[in-house]
Amino acid sequence: MTILDLGSGFGEFCRFARERGAASVTGVEISTRMLAEAKNQTGDSGITYLNAAIEDHPIGGNAFDLIVSRLTLHYIKDYRGVVLAAFRGLREGGSFVFSVEHPICTALLKGWQEDAARNKLFWPVDDYQKEGERTHHWFVDGVVKYHRTVETYVNTLLAAGFRLTRLLEPRAGAAIPADRPDLAGAARRPPLLVIAARKPANAGAADNSQ
Amino acid sequence: MTILDLGSGFGEFCRFARERGAASVTGVEISTRMLAEAKNQTGDSGITYLNAAIEDHPIGGNAFDLIVSRLTLHYIKDYRGVVLAAFRGLREGGSFVFSVEHPICTALLKGWQEDAARNKLFWPVDDYQKEGERTHHWFVDGVVKYHRTVETYVNTLLAAGFRLTRLLEPRAGAAIPADRPDLAGAARRPPLLVIAARKPANAGAADNSQ
Repeated sequence: MTILDLGSGFGEFCRFARERGAASVTGVEISTRMLAEAKNQTGDSGITYLNAAIEDHPIGGNAFDLIVSRLTLHYIKDYRGVVLAAFRGLREGGSFVFSVEHPICTALLKGWQEDAARNKLFWPVDDYQKEGERTHHWFVDGVVKYHRTVETYVNTLLAAGFRLTRLLEPRAGAAIPADRPDLAGAARRPPLLVIAARKPANAGAADNSQ
Repeated sequence: MTILDLGSGFGEFCRFARERGAASVTGVEISTRMLAEAKNQTGDSGITYLNAAIEDHPIGGNAFDLIVSRLTLHYIKDYRGVVLAAFRGLREGGSFVFSVEHPICTALLKGWQEDAARNKLFWPVDDYQKEGERTHHWFVDGVVKYHRTVETYVNTLLAAGFRLTRLLEPRAGAAIPADRPDLAGAARRPPLLVIAARKPANAGAADNSQ
C-alpha cells in the first residue's frame, strides 16, 4: 500500500505501517518539533516526512491506497476541503480512515461535572448544533478546536462520493490499566469518533444519491 | 412506491405518503388505541393497518420500495432483527429511513441540568457505552427505552448489507414558534438521529467489506 498520514506527529503510524508491509508512507506534519523527533526516530527510506499544514499540502491525484488522519481533523477549519482532497488523492477502492475527538466531547469544553469528592457525575453537552471554533487550554492557552456534528462528519464524506464502511466510538475496555485512571471516563462518554470510508471502485458511477 | 411504516401510530405518515403518490402503504402499530384512531382518520383503500409488534410482524421478501420507522426503534429490543428483516423486505434499490431519539438523549435520562431560575445549563451524558434498557417516566411509569450508540445504529446497517445514504441530527430552526419553548433545547443537543440507508441495486454483490 501507498499511504498518506495527515498529521503524522512523531511518526508512530508511519513506522507501524511500514512494519506491516506498506510500500511507502508519506507523513505530513505542521509541527517542526514533532517532525524533527519523527525523523530522529525513523531510519527508513520508505517513509517521507513533509512539513506542511494538512489543509495546505497538495495531495496528488489517484496516488494513495490509504489516507489516514489520527486526531487532527478537529483542529482543521476546512474539513470539507480535506475530504475533497482525500477523495481525489485516493485510488479507486482506496480508503480514508480518521479519528477525531468525538462531537459529544467538542460541543462544550467544560469537562466532567464532579461532586465535592471529585467523583465524575456526568459529561455536559451544550451548543451541539453550533459548529465552529472552541478555544481550549491544552498545555498552552488558546488552542483552537473546531466542533462539528456527527452529521457533518458523515454527510460531507457521502457528498464527496465516499462510501461509509465503518463508524466507531471506541470505549476503554473492561480492563483499564491501574496507571490510567483517566480512561475510566472513556467508558461513560465516547472520547473518539473513528470513521472509515472508501472511494468506490467505480467512483465515476458513485451511487450515493438520496 | 410500495411503503411499509413500522410503528405507524395515528397514521399521519401513511396518509401523507398516499397524498404524495404512494401506490400502497402498510402501517404496523402495536397500540390498538392508536390503530383505531388511525383507521378512524383514514378513508383510503390504499392504506392497510395491521396490529402487531414491529419485531413480530413478518415482512415479505423484496416487497417494498421504502420502509419507514418514526421514533419507534429505540423502544425495540432487537434492533438488529428489524434491520435484517427490513433488508430482506426491501426491493433492490429500496430505502430504509428511520428516526430515533438521539443516543446523546437516551444515554442518561436525567434531562436538562438547570440553575435555580430553571435556566437550562447543559445536557448531561453518562453510560453512553452501556447499551440496553433505560426506564423512563412518559405519561405512565416504567416505559422502557433501549439506548444504543451511533456506532451500533450505523454499523448494524452496514453489516446487513445496507449502504448509508444520509445521517441527520435535525435541529430546531432559528425561528422557534413562541408556543413551543420546549424546542429551544433542540438547538443545544440533538433530540433526534435520522438515518437513511439503501439496499444496493446489486445487493448480491454488496461491497461493504472493510
